Amino acid sequence: MSDEITLPAPADFHVHVRQGKMCELVTPQVAKGGVKTAYVMPNLVPPLTSTDSVVAYKAELERIDPSVEWLMTLYLHPEVTPDEIRKAAKAGIKGVKSYPRGVTTNSNSGIEDYGVYYPVFKAMEEEGLVLNLHGEVPSDAEKNISVLNAEVHFLRHLETLAHDFPKLRIVLEHATTSAAITTVSSLPSNVACSITAHHLFLTIDEVAPQPHHFCKPIAKEPKDRKALQDAVKSGNPKFFLGSDSAPHPLSSKSPSITQTQTEDGSPSTSVSACAAGVYTSPILIPLVATLLESFGALDKLQGFVSDHGRTFYGIPAKEGQQLKLRKTKDDEGLVRGTFKGDGVEVLPFWAGKKLAWQIVE
Amino acid sequence: MSDEITLPAPADFHVHVRQGKMCELVTPQVAKGGVKTAYVMPNLVPPLTSTDSVVAYKAELERIDPSVEWLMTLYLHPEVTPDEIRKAAKAGIKGVKSYPRGVTTNSNSGIEDYGVYYPVFKAMEEEGLVLNLHGEVPSDAEKNISVLNAEVHFLRHLETLAHDFPKLRIVLEHATTSAAITTVSSLPSNVACSITAHHLFLTIDEVAPQPHHFCKPIAKEPKDRKALQDAVKSGNPKFFLGSDSAPHPLSSKSPSITQTQTEDGSPSTSVSACAAGVYTSPILIPLVATLLESFGALDKLQGFVSDHGRTFYGIPAKEGQQLKLRKTKDDEGLVRGTFKGDGVEVLPFWAGKKLAWQIVE
Repeated sequence: MSDEITLPAPADFHVHVRQGKMCELVTPQVAKGGVKTAYVMPNLVPPLTSTDSVVAYKAELERIDPSVEWLMTLYLHPEVTPDEIRKAAKAGIKGVKSYPRGVTTNSNSGIEDYGVYYPVFKAMEEEGLVLNLHGEVPSDAEKNISVLNAEVHFLRHLETLAHDFPKLRIVLEHATTSAAITTVSSLPSNVACSITAHHLFLTIDEVAPQPHHFCKPIAKEPKDRKALQDAVKSGNPKFFLGSDSAPHPLSSKSPSITQTQTEDGSPSTSVSACAAGVYTSPILIPLVATLLESFGALDKLQGFVSDHGRTFYGIPAKEGQQLKLRKTKDDEGLVRGTFKGDGVEVLPFWAGKKLAWQIVE
Repeated sequence: MSDEITLPAPADFHVHVRQGKMCELVTPQVAKGGVKTAYVMPNLVPPLTSTDSVVAYKAELERIDPSVEWLMTLYLHPEVTPDEIRKAAKAGIKGVKSYPRGVTTNSNSGIEDYGVYYPVFKAMEEEGLVLNLHGEVPSDAEKNISVLNAEVHFLRHLETLAHDFPKLRIVLEHATTSAAITTVSSLPSNVACSITAHHLFLTIDEVAPQPHHFCKPIAKEPKDRKALQDAVKSGNPKFFLGSDSAPHPLSSKSPSITQTQTEDGSPSTSVSACAAGVYTSPILIPLVATLLESFGALDKLQGFVSDHGRTFYGIPAKEGQQLKLRKTKDDEGLVRGTFKGDGVEVLPFWAGKKLAWQIVE
């Protein structure tokens, strides 16, 4: 294998660039990670449920980094009507993201029942918008549904939607289970699946003790990771990169303990949980190259990061946007520590570890 | 049901009271949690592999709190010979704890292969010492063994030991799976099982985002928690309280990021994982009462915390050591925040939450 790889413009078909000061900090890192086209998630506060809000957000991202092609999405919500879909299509919005209520960061405005959205999906099918699914059902102890099998329980919904809307392009986002890979593989070509970099590396063993590895869906068993790796290795064009890069302030990735006194002098304590998300944008394409090489799939890198997703979405790579990667030498490729912005600090995935590939500037 | 319960002296058949300043801080909390007899784990640094070191540790605990009956254990290790077992029995040591290597806190000196210890187990059988098993095998991605199924994979070792040493009393410690409950229930009366308070409450959903809920074995699925609750509810004397109360300094329950410069000026980053352990000692018996009441097993409280373990170990409750609990009123039962000692701070489980029962002083 050569020490250099040249890729047609890589695309990340699932990325969170947030808002406010965090947006200012992380948006420029998308290009630094080797990505030329970024498909942007709409789960802001409040969520982006109107074409106008999405268009305004896109202008903000273009102001911060005009070098990246920003592809925009709406947040599936009762405010998103068939008329709004037609308006969105005219404005160049590419897709609609569905979050099951309460399952992931900022998903409290998410959905629980797809039936009510069938007219919306019909309009999306007609207008050529893509449906992006966060494929987890809410936990339910009575039914033994937890973060471990929430994705597996979702798959019947994916099958139903694929059956009911055969011309709607549907993406199961950030698959984490062997069952998801099997189901997506069995469905027609209108159904595809994004895979993150971190789920090609982590298992539950590395998540349980480390909040910086905690995300939704949670990384599962070794056999599941193997199934994701095998999906990439197969070269099946249904599977492509969507990083789900999801920065959180450092403070929200540690349990925070607040101890105060109430008015009557009695003590009050609250202990916060850690936010869900792994931040990979700044190192994304070198990381994916490093991981694919580790499990013998480096020859599938171009398909996974440049070709498959673009073909599915119909977003061709632009000329002159190739990315060149080179093998790192001994003293190269060490992933840096935190990124600091105006009052906000985030830790990238793999901080302190060594990448086997780097971007040639 | 009455608003008061009087229990024969409760016992905790699995507790970590650590060493040094942490030991000074947490040891007095054992009695505060309503426990009169405590079965103490030997995983200090270095581990307690000799009778002499155990006897010295017991003297230390008696110095700090002479009101508690401290039952002591050896750490299974090549230094623990059949002769050492006979010496330990004479010194009043009650059992030997086995840790699979690398599975839990301070278990680097643990064991991997039971075959080499058969002469030791034979001596334990003869001398009446109990074998306490941390029932997990090490993770192994090739075999799809992770923290999720490490206990299930251990159960065949438990069955083999129970078969090979029919007169050795064996305790599967801190069971977390439905499979463990089924296996222990099927084995003869020389095999018993301790259950923690926190595993009667947590599932993986509450562990993933919260390092203060992370312990080994990790809490599993809702169906597993249900199996533990049902085991308590059954009143089967094989199942009794062993809290696995395991304090860690606050600083080791958050991911710690160290960013330095190496000698040549290049940056170096390391990100530490969180320590495994849930600290329940200070609220133990009121917490267990609260939990058992929540799933309709309050009538089994005395068996679970006072009778079953004592019968199995042959440690009768002393006269005059009853514990009286009373229902909390509106402004009572709030679990306090951190405990601070000399340079060490620990957070109890359920901090900020309300207990339904309290100890009558």
